[in-house]
Amino acid sequence: MKVLVIGGDGYCGWATALHLSKKGYDVGIMDNLVRRHWDMKLGVETLTPIAPIQHRIQRWQDLTGKSIDLFVGDITDYDFLIKSLHQFEPEAIVHFGEQRSAPFSMIDREHAVLTQVNNVVGTLNILYAMRQDFPDCHLVKLGTMGEYGTPNIDIEEGYITIEHNGRKDTLPYPKQPGSFYHLSKVHDSHNIHFACKIWGLRATDLNQGVVYGVLTEETGMDEMLINRLDYDGVFGTALNRFCIQAAVGHPLTVYGKGGQTRGFLDIRDTVRCVELAIANPADPGQFRVFNQFTEMFSVGDLAVMVKNAGTHLDIDVDIKHLDNPRVELEQHYFYAKNTCLLSLGLQPHYLSDSLIDSLLNFASKYKHRVDEKQILPKVSWRR
Amino acid sequence: MKVLVIGGDGYCGWATALHLSKKGYDVGIMDNLVRRHWDMKLGVETLTPIAPIQHRIQRWQDLTGKSIDLFVGDITDYDFLIKSLHQFEPEAIVHFGEQRSAPFSMIDREHAVLTQVNNVVGTLNILYAMRQDFPDCHLVKLGTMGEYGTPNIDIEEGYITIEHNGRKDTLPYPKQPGSFYHLSKVHDSHNIHFACKIWGLRATDLNQGVVYGVLTEETGMDEMLINRLDYDGVFGTALNRFCIQAAVGHPLTVYGKGGQTRGFLDIRDTVRCVELAIANPADPGQFRVFNQFTEMFSVGDLAVMVKNAGTHLDIDVDIKHLDNPRVELEQHYFYAKNTCLLSLGLQPHYLSDSLIDSLLNFASKYKHRVDEKQILPKVSWRR
Repeated sequence: MKVLVIGGDGYCGWATALHLSKKGYDVGIMDNLVRRHWDMKLGVETLTPIAPIQHRIQRWQDLTGKSIDLFVGDITDYDFLIKSLHQFEPEAIVHFGEQRSAPFSMIDREHAVLTQVNNVVGTLNILYAMRQDFPDCHLVKLGTMGEYGTPNIDIEEGYITIEHNGRKDTLPYPKQPGSFYHLSKVHDSHNIHFACKIWGLRATDLNQGVVYGVLTEETGMDEMLINRLDYDGVFGTALNRFCIQAAVGHPLTVYGKGGQTRGFLDIRDTVRCVELAIANPADPGQFRVFNQFTEMFSVGDLAVMVKNAGTHLDIDVDIKHLDNPRVELEQHYFYAKNTCLLSLGLQPHYLSDSLIDSLLNFASKYKHRVDEKQILPKVSWRR
Repeated sequence: MKVLVIGGDGYCGWATALHLSKKGYDVGIMDNLVRRHWDMKLGVETLTPIAPIQHRIQRWQDLTGKSIDLFVGDITDYDFLIKSLHQFEPEAIVHFGEQRSAPFSMIDREHAVLTQVNNVVGTLNILYAMRQDFPDCHLVKLGTMGEYGTPNIDIEEGYITIEHNGRKDTLPYPKQPGSFYHLSKVHDSHNIHFACKIWGLRATDLNQGVVYGVLTEETGMDEMLINRLDYDGVFGTALNRFCIQAAVGHPLTVYGKGGQTRGFLDIRDTVRCVELAIANPADPGQFRVFNQFTEMFSVGDLAVMVKNAGTHLDIDVDIKHLDNPRVELEQHYFYAKNTCLLSLGLQPHYLSDSLIDSLLNFASKYKHRVDEKQILPKVSWRR
């Protein structure tokens, strides 16, 4: 089965591409490499030294005998997209190819507009390309748990059945996203849902939680296959960021009270969730939503877990509550369903002391590459 | 009070600008005039011969002594927008300045992308300009009842209180829009809601129904002030379109079964609703949603009403059920609330035989301008 991974040079995309290749899928990677460009423009760098995509793919082939087709270009360029699709002829498209940082989208107007136009137009182009020439292709689109925000009721998977004034309907779950980035994913969800309805396309929206970890079975095979690991204030995410902060002796940066609770998952589960979605495609016309996380934690709890793990490893870890640069509830109800992927067979890697230990050790190995000036958040939601 | 009407050269915008000017508001019009350009590109024309915006404004001043400032330019050009705002210094911004046709957005990929980028970026720019230099300005944004789609439960005004698994919250009403245009309005709503939340901006989203009629007290004062009246398959809307079809002896074009039920309002109420929203601004941080319609009709019912009105005027009217070019339910539950504007004092002009008579007579006056080739729908949702 031929699977195109758009954004296959990124953190989740690269791990997913290798996992699918290992599992026998015929994989193509499409990427405009703009994330590497943004890193340069912001003066930030992944903790890990990642090889150029061409070298990564070559090493993968040398090690496994499996080839991965590479399409370097931008999906907002429809001509490039449709030509490449005809060359590769995917049966499934995994779409990680979006600007994925909330702080990046909140830098200023230009970054907000860039994020929304890039993400919305890229996805519209994929939908039109599928309608035009690949109507049976299954779109596996990366959404985010952040689309839901933090409602005071349980979060369902994409839809909610509402009884109101004596009548009943199952409707899209209301969305309360917390950044222009998260908003772009909400826009995408609405657009994809509509395209499935009118054109009979098949799509799965993976509303992913915060991903942690760095090694997967495949990216751990060789230094040249190493995945990116972001710790900076723009692209770094909770837990990964905390482990790197701990490794360099920087206080863990908890925003505000730290009661912000979110869904989390190990990157080894990300790749398996995507595989499960591909292996069990949506029906024609179906817009399916899976909540892709395995556990819920508050940011404050994670910081304490990292502090405790540090103690075992003789690393002294401080926790610092910063003024929250974001606008979000810091104490709130949060309970989200995640049964769809489990019922398809996902066997989660739950967060463990040993995972945190290994992340801390991994971070220590590369801590000479840390630029401490990039650790603190510089982007404010309110400004 | 200074009010800037963005899209003030359009059907609703022009009528609103004059109404507010008449009522003593200090009015500015901002418009890129692209709607006139699109008409030319599509080879369609308003039934009524509309004067250039500069002449319209001059005639208004000659008749009433009231001047209207004109800013010709595109709000997706942030420099133009912010400079013009500083020149005018609005206390309220009425934002009609979007691509507003569902069929236009469904012509092809380019028109879908144009619609969403134009509408979303224009609105983002307004939000950023308000945050930057006009934080107390009140945004009155035109949304659409079409954002809700046709759920099987009552439609509330923007929000719905949901009880679920023993807990309760009031959340944004779920949206099921039916075209890439309607989707763009849903995207806008989410973006504006977020901007109010994080920046304390004040906004009112007017989820307007289908507008009918052409004359308002002000646009009826002089031939040079005449409003546009669209009847073509792209920009024409139900009722207005039916009256013009009847006037030229063309069968009324009901799409499918005709059971599609929607909210409708007289353009004389549009201008008063906008005035009510301006006169009663949202609070800082508040994203307020009003459903702006006065009555609900099915498309089939409207066709019958026009046919009956034709009988009084000795016009023989046929009704033709076309294959529905859209993807929409043709028989469905529809009940929407519209109490907010009524409680602010709106006194509706309900649809009457005399209104239909006058529209038919008005259409007859200009029927020599009808290009019958433009009447049938050419844009299919499914294609």
